[in-house]
Amino acid sequence: MSGNTFGTLFCVTNFGESHGPAIGCVIDGCPPGLALSEADIQPELDRRRPGSSAFVTQRKEPDQVQILSGVYQGQTTGTPIALLIPNTDPRSKDYGDIVQTFRPGHADYSYWRKYGLRDPRGGGRSSARLTAPTVAAGAVAKKWLQQQYGIGFKGCLTALGALEIPFEGWEHVERNPFFAPVSDVAELEQYLLDLRKRGDSCGARLRVLAHGVPAGLGQPIYDKLDADIAYAMMGLNAVKGVEIGAGFACVADLGSTHGDALTPEGFVGNKAGGVLGGISSGQDIEVALAIKPTSSILLPRPSIDLHGQATEVITKGRHDPCVGLRAVPIAEALLALVLMDHALRQRAQCGDVRLEQAPIAAVAPG
Amino acid sequence: MSGNTFGTLFCVTNFGESHGPAIGCVIDGCPPGLALSEADIQPELDRRRPGSSAFVTQRKEPDQVQILSGVYQGQTTGTPIALLIPNTDPRSKDYGDIVQTFRPGHADYSYWRKYGLRDPRGGGRSSARLTAPTVAAGAVAKKWLQQQYGIGFKGCLTALGALEIPFEGWEHVERNPFFAPVSDVAELEQYLLDLRKRGDSCGARLRVLAHGVPAGLGQPIYDKLDADIAYAMMGLNAVKGVEIGAGFACVADLGSTHGDALTPEGFVGNKAGGVLGGISSGQDIEVALAIKPTSSILLPRPSIDLHGQATEVITKGRHDPCVGLRAVPIAEALLALVLMDHALRQRAQCGDVRLEQAPIAAVAPG
Amino acid sequence: MSGNTFGTLFCVTNFGESHGPAIGCVIDGCPPGLALSEADIQPELDRRRPGSSAFVTQRKEPDQVQILSGVYQGQTTGTPIALLIPNTDPRSKDYGDIVQTFRPGHADYSYWRKYGLRDPRGGGRSSARLTAPTVAAGAVAKKWLQQQYGIGFKGCLTALGALEIPFEGWEHVERNPFFAPVSDVAELEQYLLDLRKRGDSCGARLRVLAHGVPAGLGQPIYDKLDADIAYAMMGLNAVKGVEIGAGFACVADLGSTHGDALTPEGFVGNKAGGVLGGISSGQDIEVALAIKPTSSILLPRPSIDLHGQATEVITKGRHDPCVGLRAVPIAEALLALVLMDHALRQRAQCGDVRLEQAPIAAVAPG
Amino acid sequence: MSGNTFGTLFCVTNFGESHGPAIGCVIDGCPPGLALSEADIQPELDRRRPGSSAFVTQRKEPDQVQILSGVYQGQTTGTPIALLIPNTDPRSKDYGDIVQTFRPGHADYSYWRKYGLRDPRGGGRSSARLTAPTVAAGAVAKKWLQQQYGIGFKGCLTALGALEIPFEGWEHVERNPFFAPVSDVAELEQYLLDLRKRGDSCGARLRVLAHGVPAGLGQPIYDKLDADIAYAMMGLNAVKGVEIGAGFACVADLGSTHGDALTPEGFVGNKAGGVLGGISSGQDIEVALAIKPTSSILLPRPSIDLHGQATEVITKGRHDPCVGLRAVPIAEALLALVLMDHALRQRAQCGDVRLEQAPIAAVAPG
Repeated sequence: MSGNTFGTLFCVTNFGESHGPAIGCVIDGCPPGLALSEADIQPELDRRRPGSSAFVTQRKEPDQVQILSGVYQGQTTGTPIALLIPNTDPRSKDYGDIVQTFRPGHADYSYWRKYGLRDPRGGGRSSARLTAPTVAAGAVAKKWLQQQYGIGFKGCLTALGALEIPFEGWEHVERNPFFAPVSDVAELEQYLLDLRKRGDSCGARLRVLAHGVPAGLGQPIYDKLDADIAYAMMGLNAVKGVEIGAGFACVADLGSTHGDALTPEGFVGNKAGGVLGGISSGQDIEVALAIKPTSSILLPRPSIDLHGQATEVITKGRHDPCVGLRAVPIAEALLALVLMDHALRQRAQCGDVRLEQAPIAAVAPG
Repeated sequence: MSGNTFGTLFCVTNFGESHGPAIGCVIDGCPPGLALSEADIQPELDRRRPGSSAFVTQRKEPDQVQILSGVYQGQTTGTPIALLIPNTDPRSKDYGDIVQTFRPGHADYSYWRKYGLRDPRGGGRSSARLTAPTVAAGAVAKKWLQQQYGIGFKGCLTALGALEIPFEGWEHVERNPFFAPVSDVAELEQYLLDLRKRGDSCGARLRVLAHGVPAGLGQPIYDKLDADIAYAMMGLNAVKGVEIGAGFACVADLGSTHGDALTPEGFVGNKAGGVLGGISSGQDIEVALAIKPTSSILLPRPSIDLHGQATEVITKGRHDPCVGLRAVPIAEALLALVLMDHALRQRAQCGDVRLEQAPIAAVAPG
Repeated sequence: MSGNTFGTLFCVTNFGESHGPAIGCVIDGCPPGLALSEADIQPELDRRRPGSSAFVTQRKEPDQVQILSGVYQGQTTGTPIALLIPNTDPRSKDYGDIVQTFRPGHADYSYWRKYGLRDPRGGGRSSARLTAPTVAAGAVAKKWLQQQYGIGFKGCLTALGALEIPFEGWEHVERNPFFAPVSDVAELEQYLLDLRKRGDSCGARLRVLAHGVPAGLGQPIYDKLDADIAYAMMGLNAVKGVEIGAGFACVADLGSTHGDALTPEGFVGNKAGGVLGGISSGQDIEVALAIKPTSSILLPRPSIDLHGQATEVITKGRHDPCVGLRAVPIAEALLALVLMDHALRQRAQCGDVRLEQAPIAAVAPG
Repeated sequence: MSGNTFGTLFCVTNFGESHGPAIGCVIDGCPPGLALSEADIQPELDRRRPGSSAFVTQRKEPDQVQILSGVYQGQTTGTPIALLIPNTDPRSKDYGDIVQTFRPGHADYSYWRKYGLRDPRGGGRSSARLTAPTVAAGAVAKKWLQQQYGIGFKGCLTALGALEIPFEGWEHVERNPFFAPVSDVAELEQYLLDLRKRGDSCGARLRVLAHGVPAGLGQPIYDKLDADIAYAMMGLNAVKGVEIGAGFACVADLGSTHGDALTPEGFVGNKAGGVLGGISSGQDIEVALAIKPTSSILLPRPSIDLHGQATEVITKGRHDPCVGLRAVPIAEALLALVLMDHALRQRAQCGDVRLEQAPIAAVAPG
């Protein structure tokens, strides 16, 4: 009920606060027999980690994950996998100023209204730090999906604030700190340096995809694959918009040009983004996200205090000028969690065989 | 697991196919003591009904709802409310041609891949007709939310294919068959007549909002209010994009201008769309949807048959040239179902009192 | 939340009241491709039906089931199966007297306290009539389990009030109206006739079992197979006790004699009742139930009215002198629903293969 | 799906193995504002702790609980409460002998069949040690239920193997290591010493009750209060039977004597065990449990090995001669978790007010 568990069959229960002793999650529903160790999870956490470049928060967190249960002799046992990530660098003093006030655009206010109290240390539970356990769980899902079905994941930055980023190639993405699919990131660096100098923040747009997805994943009529993807992505901190395939561009399109034609060689085009009627078609799953500028900035903003009186807020401390820069691994993890859950649901209802059957038509690149 | 139940506390289980004997739903979790009869539900179904204008499918369905249970002497009893809507005009012959082929952009193909069989009569389970039970359940949620908290719902068309529709006023919306917020719809009519003449279809963009929503609804960190709204909306047939508040426009925005300032008189602006950190802030909930052109068109499209052989598909029968025209009542219903569920969740965890407490600051119009 | 859905993967949502227009259920999660028609379900409903002998309620209900959805050309499609059972003989006048009072031992009082109102017609939602949809759903589960794994179900009466019933053989069970495993039921008939003459009712004890159950069903540590069986059985109207295998007799047993020895030929004995550590072992699942005497009797009982004043209650109308007499088909159905759900859960987590693997040791009859 | 979460609104996700680095749980759904620290939880863990007397396992585990999240400045925040209990005395060598064999009556065999592998160290996931997190979570539920509604819990041993234990008074229960309601436990001590000398184990019967429970808890028709209690109790390791109120004694009872009469002063008797039609009546909730003899004994038993070959098994190591001796705190905790969940469910559906309304009749002691 309280919304801290992701998934119905592959269930990830997330816990912790930004400045508590530890964060983590419990994965319930992982199939037995998957080879798993911390070394499978750590690289994904490292991709998301704070302090990894000059352009993200300088909080020093190794984000070292420990497996507390569910693995015996290097294999998952089918029982819950508890993952623990200790917090090592919580500087609570940075947040002293904001206890009595609400940052515009921040969860400060709504948490206070919901619960009647809040943990203000680093945003408490609303901190983007809580995406780390999601990434850790996603790493487990990614490994299983890769081994079982050959499913892979990719993501990149497609816009940084007002800068549109052209797509030059996937090979560039992991070679710069922005997950940008371009060879030269000088312009992006300059944009962020200017932003930081002004004490401001900016938004971002991301693309994330899954390839090798078997047809048949997704449950109509409510738990459609795209519905669950939208849920996952909109739930990522700061996301304000989600698109599947053509997204908002479909509005001005016509039926005669929109639907991806089927041919004996596969689909022509991928405006559907890999989902038809809420069920995967065998094409790549294509998702786009809009991420708003972080609300924790050094510039003064008008606001109110706990007593409803007018005041001004400046957020000191260590913040990302663009939270979108670290969002690619998180969005990939969320997509993996959705697919993992639906793979198990499909297996429950329709059995292994259907998932593994040969498609009636090979699927061409979108 | 199979995805036909919406909600966790206010649960709507949807059943039926487009051309079966009946469609309907079971609502489990409605509070007792709500005055309820068919007359509370029928008007919402009438707003969505086929055959209501020259611009939507000419299938004649009265969509007459029957309450089978859960109401005694005009009041809900707290037990399941079963709603039945008989199908009266299923012309299965219209669909004979498509049994052996797959419509590009349609669920035909993915259902077949998922289940190994499909009911092709009118799209079977994938038909937009299955939104009728959702609308019926939404009417119950709307009534309870109105009585308990004064929450209201509105929606309108903001683009029809390539035509952007300016916002002239809410008073126009129910006076034309397009839910368009304009006084003169001649241009929209002409656009649709041209489209129909060509046998084609087009997309649409919608706006839907809820006002009077108390602060505190939504459950971090996964079942955020906006996450569940995105799930609901992306699950609506043909939707390819969802935005909350500023949506994709936030990408090019700056932190210094994006966050809605708080003042003693209320928020200034509503770029957040009424949701901060996944929890309602007391502002209007603002949602936008992109709806793709329907894939059932009279123009021939290249496709394949059940054996993977190339063929051509033309969809005869009675189809909407723009499914977005009937989507406003559905999107409102979905938003109502999400808020209903979260109102009960909030009541469970934090009690009645918090929901009803006075806000620390009056909320100004966004 | 409101407790009208049974199961997590094979979900049965039950609706209706004893004297409303209809009762029924929606099954969500049935695998596609199961041959299914009303003829598969009706025989199980007939076993439970009222009016079937002189010893049960004389209400005349044909309990004719209709499949409203989820089946196309004689096969399940994987989409929700809605089952409708119209009420044809609701004599509401029989219940006029009890609207203002509470029957001792009946749900009248607790429903009133819970909801603040209640539907008194025939017990409304609390009527044992609502077990009919459970039996209908159980019939679908039984058919699938039989076809997929060869699982079968049996049940019998082991005590009628103070009369212990010896076990003579399963072949007798369906040949008398008591589900008694004995050739001669004269003593049982006389016992019930005496009871009816006095206007009284009595309790019963039942045994129900499943054979052919593969090892591996059940989910530690909370959703154990026996835990879910206990939930199912204790939820059956009037049940006050549940035993698995040896049951309460295990209290006085010793470790050296209790555990069923494993031999290369199979288990020796079945004190475990087919469940070890919450997981099926491959032995028969053995369950026993205690059913209390119905509270609707012709003898006067001291009670209170809606205003808390002392009064006396006599229940007129058509009631079963022993509700246990019709409980065998219901208990079988509940056991089938539990096994169905756990079979799908096992299939999701561990795949088809494990369920179908050869056991390491053949399992001897318990 | 995988069954490691207890509850629907107050959700306890349990993780860990007997000999892993730690065990614990995550509580999701605890209302905010409850004063909570480790000191509220530790006493309940101490009541269940191993090594606490000569009559239970001599494993030395302090079972020191740490709160990792969800509490800020001594109050619950409404976010997940993660509880960690490190394992400090796991002697894996004790279990070396059993890796290749299956103990009769133990989960060894069924886990192996289910998952295809198992963690044999101390029973791994099937160990009764995993009840510790349940007890910890139960302590949180107990505190909230006490503060919110004045609900309290009690439990005692009513039979130790073949020894029936008379009820002398609740005041004795916490003064002896057996939770026995008698002043003199010499006979019990002697019984256990004899048992231990023989290397054998025995069963037990327990009684557990909740008092001060408001009327109206429980959700018909499947998630009845007694159904969920039966689920909870049958899921406790080694339990083979559950009774509510009169339990199996109801079989030989008559309708005229069974139902608890209602009077203006309250109920007369409590054969119902506090539950009518699945909903609490305001009387004490009365539950009885049968616990089987532990299967880990020093006496040799015939069994099979992993290859299906006949062998003999002796379990060395530190085991309880009667697991029922430590079960009272666990059963109380489980009952608290069920009531907590249903209190929140009732609050969600019917609001605070109903739970707190004055009863129509004072409820007399049962």
